[in-house]
Amino acid sequence: MIAGACTVRVRYSDTDAMRVAHHTRHVAWFEVGRTELLRAAGYPYERLEGEGIGLPVIDMTLRFRAAARYDDLLRIETKVADATPVLVTFEYAIRRPTDDRLLATGRTDHAAVDMAFRRVRLPQSVRDVLTGEGFFDTAGAPC
Amino acid sequence: MIAGACTVRVRYSDTDAMRVAHHTRHVAWFEVGRTELLRAAGYPYERLEGEGIGLPVIDMTLRFRAAARYDDLLRIETKVADATPVLVTFEYAIRRPTDDRLLATGRTDHAAVDMAFRRVRLPQSVRDVLTGEGFFDTAGAPC
Amino acid sequence: MIAGACTVRVRYSDTDAMRVAHHTRHVAWFEVGRTELLRAAGYPYERLEGEGIGLPVIDMTLRFRAAARYDDLLRIETKVADATPVLVTFEYAIRRPTDDRLLATGRTDHAAVDMAFRRVRLPQSVRDVLTGEGFFDTAGAPC
Amino acid sequence: MIAGACTVRVRYSDTDAMRVAHHTRHVAWFEVGRTELLRAAGYPYERLEGEGIGLPVIDMTLRFRAAARYDDLLRIETKVADATPVLVTFEYAIRRPTDDRLLATGRTDHAAVDMAFRRVRLPQSVRDVLTGEGFFDTAGAPC
Repeated sequence: MIAGACTVRVRYSDTDAMRVAHHTRHVAWFEVGRTELLRAAGYPYERLEGEGIGLPVIDMTLRFRAAARYDDLLRIETKVADATPVLVTFEYAIRRPTDDRLLATGRTDHAAVDMAFRRVRLPQSVRDVLTGEGFFDTAGAPC
Repeated sequence: MIAGACTVRVRYSDTDAMRVAHHTRHVAWFEVGRTELLRAAGYPYERLEGEGIGLPVIDMTLRFRAAARYDDLLRIETKVADATPVLVTFEYAIRRPTDDRLLATGRTDHAAVDMAFRRVRLPQSVRDVLTGEGFFDTAGAPC
Repeated sequence: MIAGACTVRVRYSDTDAMRVAHHTRHVAWFEVGRTELLRAAGYPYERLEGEGIGLPVIDMTLRFRAAARYDDLLRIETKVADATPVLVTFEYAIRRPTDDRLLATGRTDHAAVDMAFRRVRLPQSVRDVLTGEGFFDTAGAPC
Repeated sequence: MIAGACTVRVRYSDTDAMRVAHHTRHVAWFEVGRTELLRAAGYPYERLEGEGIGLPVIDMTLRFRAAARYDDLLRIETKVADATPVLVTFEYAIRRPTDDRLLATGRTDHAAVDMAFRRVRLPQSVRDVLTGEGFFDTAGAPC
């Protein structure tokens, strides 16, 4: 299965009154992680949507271990944990390289659906990408 | 021209590291203000979209006078300032009733477009609603 | 244990390109649910923070069953599932009353911490509120 | 006065039901623009906050010229337009390099305040940076 890593910055608009990143942001960063992984592996999510297929989250777990602070650069590690014809599972870890702290981990399950949210089967071409080999590190690029 | 008021609560997810509402939230609250005004006046924005017409913001000004804090209940006052066949302008004031402070004011201009973002003319039925009379206070309802 | 319900509206700013509420929003609505429950039960979260205690999320699960659409009024049902001196667990269900659909369910675990994120014990007064009896329905009020 | 450019990606969580970036996001991208400019010029905003000084937005204008779409890479151009001892003004342009379209322009005015939101004077060291010379292009880096 493919895996990869990318980098996000904690923006001021990501923070809350505790002066740390609000926990909704980790959910958005997971989305950034899988988006950049798919792009790096050669099958951008935009292309999948162009083929009339979406991958909405149907189940999600997150564990928060330490707070992300304003202006932190975070490394989002993402891997495909499972990919059947109808379901894809990603796993994530969010780390802060400056002190090598693991900040959060999680998992998202996604159903393949058409644009009317009816369940469909994933094209074999996508499954081949998801179940391929390779580690894609785009940590130096904007995302 | 119609005018109205509704109420929003400052959520924890609206705050930032200064312990006040982030300034992006006022932009979202203006949107709540005009949405609730249109609904109260009898022409929900959802109905307009159902007719294939959108009203994206093309120009916006905001002035921030005092900070909104976590858990504040805010009164969003909205009025139609202009409504031509192709352009609608709303004006806003955000107040905190508990100390009668004016927190922010602003204005948004909106173009009438179809779902492909091409300029269109507004139906007369919508213009009649926008240019009608009435003050719609929904400050006690969820929004 | 206490339980309650409140109402949120799906705002345009909550939607995404699939024309449904983005899944980060359910996380924010869970926060609204527990905030309104604590307020209705007589111990607003703001008061807890005023005493130097926070309840950050340390673990979270969400299951998405059906999409929430623009302008839907949603009922957020929240209950305290567990409350020890150092940990509080809430459970949630998000329903759309107009068609009685269950849209999402979830759970959040919270650690009691001071403002420097060190673990502390919850005051007995808060635990008494959390473990009390009562169903608090504020579904008609802004939140 | 200093100026610079950085790059952001339109995330799925930035889009709305019109399948374009919601207009609140441009406000957040302006913040990214000035943050990266200050960092590149050698005076990170985090350092300013560490000295007890904030620069909240007190006035803002935005003009939207064309829609930003999902997955677009956007170039945020930011420049200091004015910097007095008590007020700083930034100007912005958001462009899409792939088709060289200008998507949005704007301006934000910021007051220098202490952490209790009382007006203060900016340290001369910050003013020297703001009124210095230089164009800082960090368009290839994460932000």
